[in-house]
Amino acid sequence: MARTVVDLANERKKCDFDVEELTNYIDGDAISTHKRRQLENKVLSVKELFDVVPEEYLSHKEKYENAIRKSVLLYKVLEEIKDPNETEMQNARTFFRSLLPFAIFKDNSPFSLHYSMFVPAIIAQANDEQKKYWLKRAMNTEIIGTYAQTELGHGTFIRGLETTATYDVETEEFVLHSPTLTAYKWWPGSLAHTANYCVVMAQLNIKGKNYGIQPFMVQLRDENTHMPLSGIKLGEIGAKLGFNTVNNGFLGFDQHRIPRDRMLMKNAQVSKDGVFTRKTDSKLTYGTMVYVRVMIVNSMANHLARSVTIAVRYSAVRKQSQINTDQPEVQVMDFLTQQHKLFVAIASSHAIRITAAWLWDKYEKVTKDMEAGKSDGLPELHALACCLKAVSSADASDMVITCSRACGGHGYILSSNLPQIYGLIAAACIYEGENTVLLLQTARSLVKAWEQNARGEKLSSTVSYIADTRPFGKWENSVEGIIKGFERVAACKLSAAVSTRNKYLKSGLSPEESWNMTSVQLVAVSEAHCRALILSTYKAEVDRKAQHLSAPLKRAMYQLVELYATYWSLQKLGDLLLYTSMSESDVQQLRQNYESLLLKIRPNAVGLVDGFDFRDEILNSTLGAYDGRVYERLMEEALKSPLNAEPVNRSFHQYLKPFMQGKL
Amino acid sequence: MARTVVDLANERKKCDFDVEELTNYIDGDAISTHKRRQLENKVLSVKELFDVVPEEYLSHKEKYENAIRKSVLLYKVLEEIKDPNETEMQNARTFFRSLLPFAIFKDNSPFSLHYSMFVPAIIAQANDEQKKYWLKRAMNTEIIGTYAQTELGHGTFIRGLETTATYDVETEEFVLHSPTLTAYKWWPGSLAHTANYCVVMAQLNIKGKNYGIQPFMVQLRDENTHMPLSGIKLGEIGAKLGFNTVNNGFLGFDQHRIPRDRMLMKNAQVSKDGVFTRKTDSKLTYGTMVYVRVMIVNSMANHLARSVTIAVRYSAVRKQSQINTDQPEVQVMDFLTQQHKLFVAIASSHAIRITAAWLWDKYEKVTKDMEAGKSDGLPELHALACCLKAVSSADASDMVITCSRACGGHGYILSSNLPQIYGLIAAACIYEGENTVLLLQTARSLVKAWEQNARGEKLSSTVSYIADTRPFGKWENSVEGIIKGFERVAACKLSAAVSTRNKYLKSGLSPEESWNMTSVQLVAVSEAHCRALILSTYKAEVDRKAQHLSAPLKRAMYQLVELYATYWSLQKLGDLLLYTSMSESDVQQLRQNYESLLLKIRPNAVGLVDGFDFRDEILNSTLGAYDGRVYERLMEEALKSPLNAEPVNRSFHQYLKPFMQGKL
Repeated sequence: MARTVVDLANERKKCDFDVEELTNYIDGDAISTHKRRQLENKVLSVKELFDVVPEEYLSHKEKYENAIRKSVLLYKVLEEIKDPNETEMQNARTFFRSLLPFAIFKDNSPFSLHYSMFVPAIIAQANDEQKKYWLKRAMNTEIIGTYAQTELGHGTFIRGLETTATYDVETEEFVLHSPTLTAYKWWPGSLAHTANYCVVMAQLNIKGKNYGIQPFMVQLRDENTHMPLSGIKLGEIGAKLGFNTVNNGFLGFDQHRIPRDRMLMKNAQVSKDGVFTRKTDSKLTYGTMVYVRVMIVNSMANHLARSVTIAVRYSAVRKQSQINTDQPEVQVMDFLTQQHKLFVAIASSHAIRITAAWLWDKYEKVTKDMEAGKSDGLPELHALACCLKAVSSADASDMVITCSRACGGHGYILSSNLPQIYGLIAAACIYEGENTVLLLQTARSLVKAWEQNARGEKLSSTVSYIADTRPFGKWENSVEGIIKGFERVAACKLSAAVSTRNKYLKSGLSPEESWNMTSVQLVAVSEAHCRALILSTYKAEVDRKAQHLSAPLKRAMYQLVELYATYWSLQKLGDLLLYTSMSESDVQQLRQNYESLLLKIRPNAVGLVDGFDFRDEILNSTLGAYDGRVYERLMEEALKSPLNAEPVNRSFHQYLKPFMQGKL
Repeated sequence: MARTVVDLANERKKCDFDVEELTNYIDGDAISTHKRRQLENKVLSVKELFDVVPEEYLSHKEKYENAIRKSVLLYKVLEEIKDPNETEMQNARTFFRSLLPFAIFKDNSPFSLHYSMFVPAIIAQANDEQKKYWLKRAMNTEIIGTYAQTELGHGTFIRGLETTATYDVETEEFVLHSPTLTAYKWWPGSLAHTANYCVVMAQLNIKGKNYGIQPFMVQLRDENTHMPLSGIKLGEIGAKLGFNTVNNGFLGFDQHRIPRDRMLMKNAQVSKDGVFTRKTDSKLTYGTMVYVRVMIVNSMANHLARSVTIAVRYSAVRKQSQINTDQPEVQVMDFLTQQHKLFVAIASSHAIRITAAWLWDKYEKVTKDMEAGKSDGLPELHALACCLKAVSSADASDMVITCSRACGGHGYILSSNLPQIYGLIAAACIYEGENTVLLLQTARSLVKAWEQNARGEKLSSTVSYIADTRPFGKWENSVEGIIKGFERVAACKLSAAVSTRNKYLKSGLSPEESWNMTSVQLVAVSEAHCRALILSTYKAEVDRKAQHLSAPLKRAMYQLVELYATYWSLQKLGDLLLYTSMSESDVQQLRQNYESLLLKIRPNAVGLVDGFDFRDEILNSTLGAYDGRVYERLMEEALKSPLNAEPVNRSFHQYLKPFMQGKL
């Protein structure tokens, strides 16, 4: 047996808790683990879904064609294995929420927008009659759709969108038009060459008056020939850092006409004679945005878990240098600096996953309340989702980079899958609300809470710490103490930012300019709030579940909580020293605690990542596979490069030989 | 004229200094600017060097073949335009040190290792007779070579390399062998399919005794057929995050025999009868490592300058949201958060470039001293190069990511070139010494200096602050005050780390284990030292040149120095609060200074990046071109995607149509 295989097997012997128990804990319970594994077993046993030549060697065009081949095949597989007790949509969602797409596409399917955006848009925006017709067609995949909002010139600022839908009373049609180049829809997945229908968001104009952004169901391509319809310009936006198989596209309209009933009319209507009415609260659409962001937070936890599984297993297998010069080379995981890089990523994945689940419960509650006509929980939910999406994606991005570098040069090779996971996370820092913009939205609600508190109003639970004006008291080096410290930091930073804004206001700046001049501080306030929130939620949720855990697993889970709290307190020393009673000796103590926590976690490290229970296909990594055959896999994957199929590349005869012989 | 073009032109009117003066200052002087532009004009006017279909759409194999085509052509162009007053090697280096390769390859040429490693290895390691023969063949490009040291299983820890060269006295040959899979050479650029010769580093064994790592000139491929020689296994290591055209390869030996005279014998010799002698100081090879690291530091400054040029120009053109709701949308650069993201990257590029130049001068001085037999400057130089390479690449990496995100979704598109620049910088964090390992090497020399100081010995100038035991005194919010603060932080962190190590020593750990247990702190010490060093060097060098600058440019340059110092003091608040007399009101003052510095720099932002004087071809970016035609370029580049050549992709007929029609 190879040395590396033995090393990894030995690591597993060191683990002092039951890995299966950890897996059940992560999945929720043993039944969920079983169901997940069943789905994975079924899908991953279909060999045709996997590439013989790894995707990274194909041309951009070939990647797309291959992804379509696999998407169609995957659909058939999912049809065969779907759970009859679930709806079609639930089945589709179960799959797209799983990590299986990343096993098959490395990024995602060109059909993913169909289920994640097109169908939900029909459900949320079509009236009953429309829904009956379009939902059926979509769920039968008679048509493939996507959702087009972002334009070349506008993303975050939705009011700035330029595409127009002008109602023509004479013909009872809407005329869709892209008045400028920047009005072109730009980014929607599936839009380029895949979808033949699309929900398009456009500025509704009737008789010279603007009625804001409304959704329109637009046929893009002929159902039989797939040719773009007249007045419609379609194409792809080009190669990107990641997501190259999702077929992101552009869409321009040249006075393209669609019938009146193609406006999705659940929330607003236009009558034949051009009278606009609005039926329902526009807040409802907020709900979808929150839903998507909760999903992103959860996916950040998953991607981070994949990254650190790869890096920890590799670090247990890789040997480099000696610690004691008279002894053999050691596993790189024995270096404290390596533990410092990796273990916090394990803890972060738990912290983010647990906070996402907590946010999901909140989302479900608020949605139920809203259906009963009570929407007062929505602003808090929105503020939470904004900062959690921003902080979780930013942390995951930093940490996947660290995981990647912790694997040295091999983490730079695509067969490690770490660069591709980075690409997925990097995108999440920008899409569905760019992170800085989101943090400023949360900051707005924090400033509002500050003002409510000043007026003596009661605050919602997640910001109640703002009202705590007691002296901070003695610093305590415990998780509880650190949480208290982080809440105090958030409150004090908020107070300082409000003062700064007031100072600018007094100096004569407008409220908006004062806000802008304070915005660097406000972003920091929002992050501080989010750190306090994640930390306290993580701790509270582990507490809540702890009674159901065996003693060894409980200990391991609390070690991660403590590591997470200690890591972040050391990262945010400046704030803690400024705003709490923390002293220099407290800092020394924290550092020492941190170092000894790393040592305690070390023997369990491989067990902790095994507990995430990722199938090798889902890790898709030469460095991270369960058996530790790292070097063999690196070579096997390299040999799949088409360049390696021939000993001499044709460019030698064409260019290199004449060049070296001086005949060029 | 497009709106975006006007916006950028208006920005240029706001700039209050002479951009050409800034360019000359960056290049060194007006003559250097002129020479650089001449070289660029000549190379960039050769249209065949540029791709019709952008590289990102090609398959991995096509990318390589295209890179060989361009490399050969490029060589011819360089032959034609070379400076007759310079040597062949100087001309080659001038080119490879310029940013021109990034205009032509986006990453680099498969020939780059020939000039950057193979030829220098011959010069440094071959004896006169060998040099006469091999250098001529290499410089005439009769042969193409590379340099193979790193193996699949070993990188940083050179003593662990496994490839053996066993001397056979009978036949007067060395037998090269890869005893294991992990002994395969892995990573050298050009090695896979391009080079036919290679300098191979291997463990020399003679009559059962090991004589350490020695260099061997090995023919890899037949000069006529390019077939790998018998006993030699060659191939490429597979696709990576970046550098996909440099043709990184692997190399395995199966008892491959080479004549005795193929060992490069400048520094050590093996006689016919197998007697090993060592001639020169092995420290000399250190020099090459330092040289390469100085080059890397400089290239980090260049890549960062390219990134921020792209992001600043785009931010001047992109409009998004309003600041005042009754006014039109603003340029995103008017948001303080955007200025916060970008301006420090401009300052950092200057700081790093200037420190690299200062280090280069030190390197030249030490090299001269060494030629005169005086090598006592080498350890300090080595320690400086280690931490500067690590910190400059880490900072450049963080900042190119920030630049990329500051461009929103468009920064994720490859035509922006930001993802590719990230790929180049990410590699620099790992190659030529992984950053954590390098920081620990610097830490070792700092601890040594600490001990020297304790013994009352005099310290070299870059660490003399360690000896300063005066009370810190009052905190001063000035660049000088911040430098003093950073030096104190480095000294105090060093002191704390030494205490920690001593504590572990006393507890019974071995020196090596104690070092390991302190290593997280030691990495932080090394970073703190490096921050103090960059900051003080940056300030001192700007001071030194300031008298030659016009008043407006001098003001602009000092604003950047101040911004850089203030930014880092706010980033490192925890350390400054712990180890200096900085107070809460000092922090508030620093924040206010920082905000007002951003406002002062804002009108000059485009001028500052224009001053870097990058040709559009060298930026290679839809978002960063000089004229501001961002949206037009994004569309033009997208249309170059081969997927956009046909309105309907063939996968529709093959898969999509039968699928949607339920016939699959």
